[in-house]
Order: sequence, then structure tokens, then C-alpha cells
Amino acid sequence: MDALDIIRKRRSIRKYKKDAPADGDIEKILEAARWAPSGLNNQPWRFLVIKDKNNKDGLAKFTKYGFIIKDAPVVIVVCMDLADSYNRDKDWMAMGACIQNMLLEAYALGLGTCWLGEILNKKQEVARYLNLDKNLELTAALALGYPNEDITEGRRKPLKNLIIKS
Amino acid sequence: MDALDIIRKRRSIRKYKKDAPADGDIEKILEAARWAPSGLNNQPWRFLVIKDKNNKDGLAKFTKYGFIIKDAPVVIVVCMDLADSYNRDKDWMAMGACIQNMLLEAYALGLGTCWLGEILNKKQEVARYLNLDKNLELTAALALGYPNEDITEGRRKPLKNLIIKS
Repeated sequence: MDALDIIRKRRSIRKYKKDAPADGDIEKILEAARWAPSGLNNQPWRFLVIKDKNNKDGLAKFTKYGFIIKDAPVVIVVCMDLADSYNRDKDWMAMGACIQNMLLEAYALGLGTCWLGEILNKKQEVARYLNLDKNLELTAALALGYPNEDITEGRRKPLKNLIIKS
Repeated sequence: MDALDIIRKRRSIRKYKKDAPADGDIEKILEAARWAPSGLNNQPWRFLVIKDKNNKDGLAKFTKYGFIIKDAPVVIVVCMDLADSYNRDKDWMAMGACIQNMLLEAYALGLGTCWLGEILNKKQEVARYLNLDKNLELTAALALGYPNEDITEGRRKPLKNLIIKS
């Protein structure tokens, strides 16, 4: 597969097989995250890998998409370290670049992911539940595992609608 | 090259050859951008491709890294459409995912990019210069072209420093 194939064919996966991804694959996904670009190379991303069922089920309560967290064998909690933050808008962009690297690498490894954002509505509660340092801000939770659903066609606006006329 | 290779080896390029990238390659890069994930699939990204030297030189004046814009044969101005925005933090993350797709696809095509963020300090001035619709907010400028410099080794924090202890 070439890069554009990976980018185009990746989809959000909401149902997972029971088999856990190999630790080596999880490490590759975190390695992909680590190499994202960031403003001033500040690398504000931090990761918490959760495999424990009880811990995962507890986390699931903080989002209406908790059924995805419960179903996935692994969840990667992604935080921004405010101690390394220098410009909030740019740091959020860096977090997005970092998360996208993880989604793409997971897909390239045959794994599925779901980028969960609704859980940010309860970010304080999640921080308390996970006992996060006060300088860590929740930015996303990623469900991870082998896909157990048919891949649907993605929908995007046509390119012509995205081009700014000058 | 596999996905992790592309992710790991991509670098910011600050010096470019004079040859312009093919229009087909620019389109592939925009296609990669288009397939990024976004919250509620809102796809807030918009793009302005600038090849005209005068226009590019004028844009270069709004950042201290203007020499990179002047040197690159193409600049892609990336904006967020506030009419499609639903959550500012999440929309900035989506913009980051979108930009990362462009950087990766460009690298996979043998092209170099530089993600320019300092120009956001002058986003109002840039919007006036480019005559952007009032709902378009500047999020980045990407220099694009064939690399004309030696690739240096990237630097990143070791993975163990990025893992949250639970």
C-alpha cells in the first residue's frame, strides 16, 4: 500500500475482535506518535495504554461512546502536557498530527482504531479517575484492536469545495 | 517504504530546487488532506495553492521564515472554515491531522515540506492580503517542493518519557 492508500482507506472501527494487539505493534503505534511534528519541536504528547478490563470499563463511563472503549482490547489515552505547551492552537494541531500518525500506523499494521473525542466533555472527571498529573490535559482516547466489522465507504466533501478561490 | 518509515523519516525542508512539483502530485497531497478524520466529520479544512512568484513573495513578508516561502516553488495556505467549526480544540486537532496527511503524502512522493506556524502571528494581515472570506481562519502555510538540502537527523524525546505511569 502507498501512503495515499493508507490515508484514504483508514476508517473508524467500532467493533473489535477479542484478540489483543501485540505489544510490539502497540509500541510501533507509539513510535509513530513520537515522530509527529510540533511547533518548536515541543512534543507535548503523552500516552497512557490501558489494557486492564476493569480500568477500561471504568473509563467507558465518561462517554456515550463507552461501548467502543469496552469492546476494544486496548485504549490509548492521549494527553497534552501543559508544561510543554507554548501556543494552545498550535499545540492542539500538533496533538492532531500525533494522533493521525497513530491511526495510520495502526491501519498499516492491520489494526483498527476509533478516535474518541466526545469524552473530552468529561475531561476533569477522566483526569480524576485516571489520577493524571495536574499538568496533563486529556485530548483524546483511541480505541485499538483488530476490526470486527465490515468496512464502510467513507464520505468526504469533493476537493473542489475545499479549494479557496484567489 | 512502510508507514512508520514515512512517518519517521519525514523532515522539515527549508531549501528547495527550482523545479515545480507536478500538478498531479499537488492534487494527491490535497487528496490526502481531504481524507483526514474530523469530529462529526465536519471537514473544516480549506486550501489555497499559491505558485505565482509575486503572490508568494508578498505572503513571505508576514513571517520571519519568509525566506522558506520565497524559496519553495509552491505554498499551500491552509485555513479552517469557521462556518463548519463545532468545537475549537477538536477542530484544531482535525486541522493538525489534515496537515500531517499532507506532509506524509508529500514525503512519500519525494517532495519536501515545511509546516510554517509563525505566520499565524499575522493571521489578520495575511487574511487581508489574500482577500480571504471572513469565515476562513489561517491555520498554517506549507512550503512545498523538491528538497535541496541534506536531510538531518530528527530529534525526539525517548518513548519512556512520553508514557504516563498509571
